[in-house]
Amino acid sequence: MYPWHITHDDVESIAIGAGILGTGGGGNPYLGKVLMQSMLDRGYSVTVIGVDDLADDALVTEVGTMGAPTVGVEKLPHGDEPRWVVEALEAHIGRPIDAITCAEIGGANSIQPLVAGALTGKPVVDADSMGRAFPELQMSTHFIDGVACVPTALVDEKNNRIVFSEMTEPRILERFARDLCVLMGCRAELAGPALSGAQMKRSSVRNTLSLAKRLGDAVRKARASKAPMVDAILAVTGGSELFAGKLFDVRRRTTRGFARGDLVAEGLGDYRGQWLHVAFQNENLVAWRGTPDARGEVVACVPDLICIIETETGEPITTEQLRYGLRVTVLGIPCSDKLRTPAALDVVGPAAFGYPEVTFVPMAKVPGVGLE
Amino acid sequence: MYPWHITHDDVESIAIGAGILGTGGGGNPYLGKVLMQSMLDRGYSVTVIGVDDLADDALVTEVGTMGAPTVGVEKLPHGDEPRWVVEALEAHIGRPIDAITCAEIGGANSIQPLVAGALTGKPVVDADSMGRAFPELQMSTHFIDGVACVPTALVDEKNNRIVFSEMTEPRILERFARDLCVLMGCRAELAGPALSGAQMKRSSVRNTLSLAKRLGDAVRKARASKAPMVDAILAVTGGSELFAGKLFDVRRRTTRGFARGDLVAEGLGDYRGQWLHVAFQNENLVAWRGTPDARGEVVACVPDLICIIETETGEPITTEQLRYGLRVTVLGIPCSDKLRTPAALDVVGPAAFGYPEVTFVPMAKVPGVGLE
Repeated sequence: MYPWHITHDDVESIAIGAGILGTGGGGNPYLGKVLMQSMLDRGYSVTVIGVDDLADDALVTEVGTMGAPTVGVEKLPHGDEPRWVVEALEAHIGRPIDAITCAEIGGANSIQPLVAGALTGKPVVDADSMGRAFPELQMSTHFIDGVACVPTALVDEKNNRIVFSEMTEPRILERFARDLCVLMGCRAELAGPALSGAQMKRSSVRNTLSLAKRLGDAVRKARASKAPMVDAILAVTGGSELFAGKLFDVRRRTTRGFARGDLVAEGLGDYRGQWLHVAFQNENLVAWRGTPDARGEVVACVPDLICIIETETGEPITTEQLRYGLRVTVLGIPCSDKLRTPAALDVVGPAAFGYPEVTFVPMAKVPGVGLE
Repeated sequence: MYPWHITHDDVESIAIGAGILGTGGGGNPYLGKVLMQSMLDRGYSVTVIGVDDLADDALVTEVGTMGAPTVGVEKLPHGDEPRWVVEALEAHIGRPIDAITCAEIGGANSIQPLVAGALTGKPVVDADSMGRAFPELQMSTHFIDGVACVPTALVDEKNNRIVFSEMTEPRILERFARDLCVLMGCRAELAGPALSGAQMKRSSVRNTLSLAKRLGDAVRKARASKAPMVDAILAVTGGSELFAGKLFDVRRRTTRGFARGDLVAEGLGDYRGQWLHVAFQNENLVAWRGTPDARGEVVACVPDLICIIETETGEPITTEQLRYGLRVTVLGIPCSDKLRTPAALDVVGPAAFGYPEVTFVPMAKVPGVGLE
């Protein structure tokens, strides 16, 4: 498996898989995909290694983009931000970073670390700290496990560099960094924290880059062979189909940098007569099966993944793409075990998102299938 | 003169002198005075040295408080912030700081560096980078001279630490730091940038702590002996009396963290029949002599100092203390020569404050008197 030399075709699949794991958020991987593929075409290379390939005392950091996806599609980056932000962190720590990893496999931040690896020449570790996408920085398996959220560096397209060197807790880092990101124009590159190889082995969600690739491969194969899309996806991720139908109503508002709202979908085919409600904050949070006007019974919720795909193509649909009339299939995918502990549920359970009345009932998992 | 071991009585005078040099802004030195005096009473000590006592390769940094004066009187500090912020900067630079200096002699930031010196055991250099108070970080003789505005560290009362390690220009540091300061609760401690002894010799405004002390001494002596207050002050600072009278109208609004507005004063005694208008942004910016409704002719403007004192006592009046009926005397004090260059006027002249129609005509100075 490793070292895995990333190819143009790998990136094509990773983008699709990461889009599905994005659960509606994480930003559209398209621009990152185009950038990474063009870099590979121009002779850049990036290598992915496994978590177990890390020495215990290796120094690893996550690299990703922070900001509003609606801005990201308009405000193009300089291009060197991933390299600059790694340099900013190294300058502060006073020691070179040995490897880069993903903060968030869902969405565009599946590919940003690959860009960072290509620009810096450092390997990228096949892992992340969510196994999906989440809207806020404290929502990380490393921080849940007690890893310090500092040092963390933030860089903009003008190479302004800010380092968070002490923070009382990750939620406070989120507040300060989010505010600075907005001031930087709603798009900033982030690197941090300082993770040892040993810590990566303890608390990362493993093998998620390769999972995203296998998931994208399965979707592309199903498209080409016109095989059942949902079966192809669930064979890789585990979980089940929750619903298929048509989007009937979407209410969305952008507040404090997040796209919040809910949708109502009308069932078709086997789901005729059923109505699904989904609430989201960038990412899909809770799904209920009810009536047109009443939510009814919870069928899935965070931290498990609620993924909305276009029924025809398997194309993942992000929050900003939701609109009346879209034919969608809603999948429930079991999350990483690391998000299911009591400590994790304090940070990423329904109550943490404003749904204290919703009880998390973990979806069944098949050992060896999907997120670890 | 040096080493100057600061006494309880020195602090009493420095606070008064710094209040006058604050030109209406800089925050009321009272709380800082009480803190420093109580520290001295409890056995802390702080020593002041001259700029020429610095080795050329000494590492010096400015320490001060950033934030809204209205918050500063309510939101008490932890107490260790000056020490924490120096530590944050040292940790980032990777080298101990040899001495602390003032950013701003006008107002409360005359005393913060003394507190920092007492907490860290480091000497404080008799100098600042304004020779008065100014509302924004880029308004510094060091930055005007081309010194990098980074690294700069910011710390709050919870010991959250943020380091600005690269900034495109000082105005951008001001924007980011001001925004973070507001997020920290409108009160933060700042340390930076990294100044060499050689640079201090080139661009600091020298001997301003001792000037503040001499000015405070003169005010206290004139009070005790009932000698003419204005003469006593001007003998130390140079400059002239511009006006004496009664505050007639004060319009003030707080926007973007600054107290902006204007006042109208009605002349008394020798100034009967005259009307003075003063515009301010925390600090007093421009003074005109006109009619009750029309500003008339400019009599003084930034970067020269426009200082308003209570006629009876010589007590400096800050922007937030202005009110109808106060008997005031308005003094014009010539600023440091370092603020009078074309490069400086771009940053601290009337146009930089929104008065491009006002031409700066420097007040006459007597060599060896007042700000250097």
